[in-house]
Amino acid sequence: MIESEWLHTVEWGECDPAGIVFYPNFYRWFDSSAHYLMKSHGLGQTEMIARYAIVGFPLIETHAKYIRPVKWEDEVKVKSSIEANSRKTFTVKHRIFRVNGTEELCVEGHEVRIWAVKDKDTGLMKAGQLPDEIVERLG
Amino acid sequence: MIESEWLHTVEWGECDPAGIVFYPNFYRWFDSSAHYLMKSHGLGQTEMIARYAIVGFPLIETHAKYIRPVKWEDEVKVKSSIEANSRKTFTVKHRIFRVNGTEELCVEGHEVRIWAVKDKDTGLMKAGQLPDEIVERLG
Amino acid sequence: MIESEWLHTVEWGECDPAGIVFYPNFYRWFDSSAHYLMKSHGLGQTEMIARYAIVGFPLIETHAKYIRPVKWEDEVKVKSSIEANSRKTFTVKHRIFRVNGTEELCVEGHEVRIWAVKDKDTGLMKAGQLPDEIVERLG
Amino acid sequence: MIESEWLHTVEWGECDPAGIVFYPNFYRWFDSSAHYLMKSHGLGQTEMIARYAIVGFPLIETHAKYIRPVKWEDEVKVKSSIEANSRKTFTVKHRIFRVNGTEELCVEGHEVRIWAVKDKDTGLMKAGQLPDEIVERLG
Repeated sequence: MIESEWLHTVEWGECDPAGIVFYPNFYRWFDSSAHYLMKSHGLGQTEMIARYAIVGFPLIETHAKYIRPVKWEDEVKVKSSIEANSRKTFTVKHRIFRVNGTEELCVEGHEVRIWAVKDKDTGLMKAGQLPDEIVERLG
Repeated sequence: MIESEWLHTVEWGECDPAGIVFYPNFYRWFDSSAHYLMKSHGLGQTEMIARYAIVGFPLIETHAKYIRPVKWEDEVKVKSSIEANSRKTFTVKHRIFRVNGTEELCVEGHEVRIWAVKDKDTGLMKAGQLPDEIVERLG
Repeated sequence: MIESEWLHTVEWGECDPAGIVFYPNFYRWFDSSAHYLMKSHGLGQTEMIARYAIVGFPLIETHAKYIRPVKWEDEVKVKSSIEANSRKTFTVKHRIFRVNGTEELCVEGHEVRIWAVKDKDTGLMKAGQLPDEIVERLG
Repeated sequence: MIESEWLHTVEWGECDPAGIVFYPNFYRWFDSSAHYLMKSHGLGQTEMIARYAIVGFPLIETHAKYIRPVKWEDEVKVKSSIEANSRKTFTVKHRIFRVNGTEELCVEGHEVRIWAVKDKDTGLMKAGQLPDEIVERLG
């Protein structure tokens, strides 16, 4: 398992007329956090494309639970971790905390991603086998 | 159960460097479709706030599965429906089809929303009881 | 000069905690309207890339004036027009009206775009000459 | 004049199918940078609303010039400064640099904002007089 943390101050334009974060923005943070986590462990998308000729890490499923509202100017910490599920998919877990002395869990979710390669015959994208090196790194 | 359909042409700015829709935008469409569905059945948020003094319909959970990629300039149809789960929550189901003669299912997901009222003692938002009228409408 | 009109209902997620459209979204509408205008006159980016081997129509300048606030659920009409400025740039003018029986001008702006080609020597993008056909169409 | 600097790594979801930042996102950064600049000098919107009963700092005009493209994963620095134009408006200037050993200017723009108060008679928002304290701070 690999892990990362990422700090962010909630922006005016991320909030809706109720004064709280418009929920698709939590998924924007999930995506950024997944890229950051991969990259900070030497597994960034650009590097992986260069090394393994993959297409990227497209998503097959995402999920989130909203536990407490997050407001404009709140300081948040996004904690993410990755685990390989099988030779073909891996799950990125995300938890968003409001930090203010203590850490309060506000949102919890995950993304399931595949290791996408190009099918030689059809030219279409399909799920490939995670290389041994990657499975080892992701645990 | 109430239902709606909504057509959209995928915009340049909704797509990422891979040329496909950046996934948080699917949730933007879910949210817009939920509002449109409620409103087109006389249950719009503004009307409900006026009639029942609620705070809104905040989300407690969302989920999506990505079946086929959606690309720039694709024509999509978002089909949504609502069912009451209990006296306190309702689920909005969404399916996104690419339309091009036929309809190909590309994304499928749901939002769980509550009927939020203000707690008289604490001033905080909490899940209230769905009024009978609403339960009947949602089936 | 070519022209187009485009209708839109302001979405919840496009508005900020003040209950009005978060201004970068006006530029999203400008961009969508520019693409729609080009495409509806047979000058869509995909067609132009195929016919003239250009890279696209990147922006060199944008500007907007905010005359009246636009709120959630407002019906708006985006009126756009294009004029060629020279053999190398063209300007897309946009006006956003709130429509409600009458049309009230709320936002007015423009984008200056170039006809981008790839430099054979450096491989970098640069402003190319607008083809005669295009200059004629844009007037 | 007051000034600030703000660092950012360009996110995947901020880029379009051409692999460069979708331009409305530059305005998102402008807005965030303006809020950050005001707040870091004790002039944050929340504080000013509390102290002067204003409504906020709405925009009347924005402008940007795009000098060099900004790509995914680029490190950027947003440098902002504010000057009062008159007793009723102030201008926030923004410059976006790609930082990579040197600083390359990529985008340059500004926002003109007003000091908005509520008209006692009509209840509508209008431009108020900047308080002496603020004029002094902004220079």
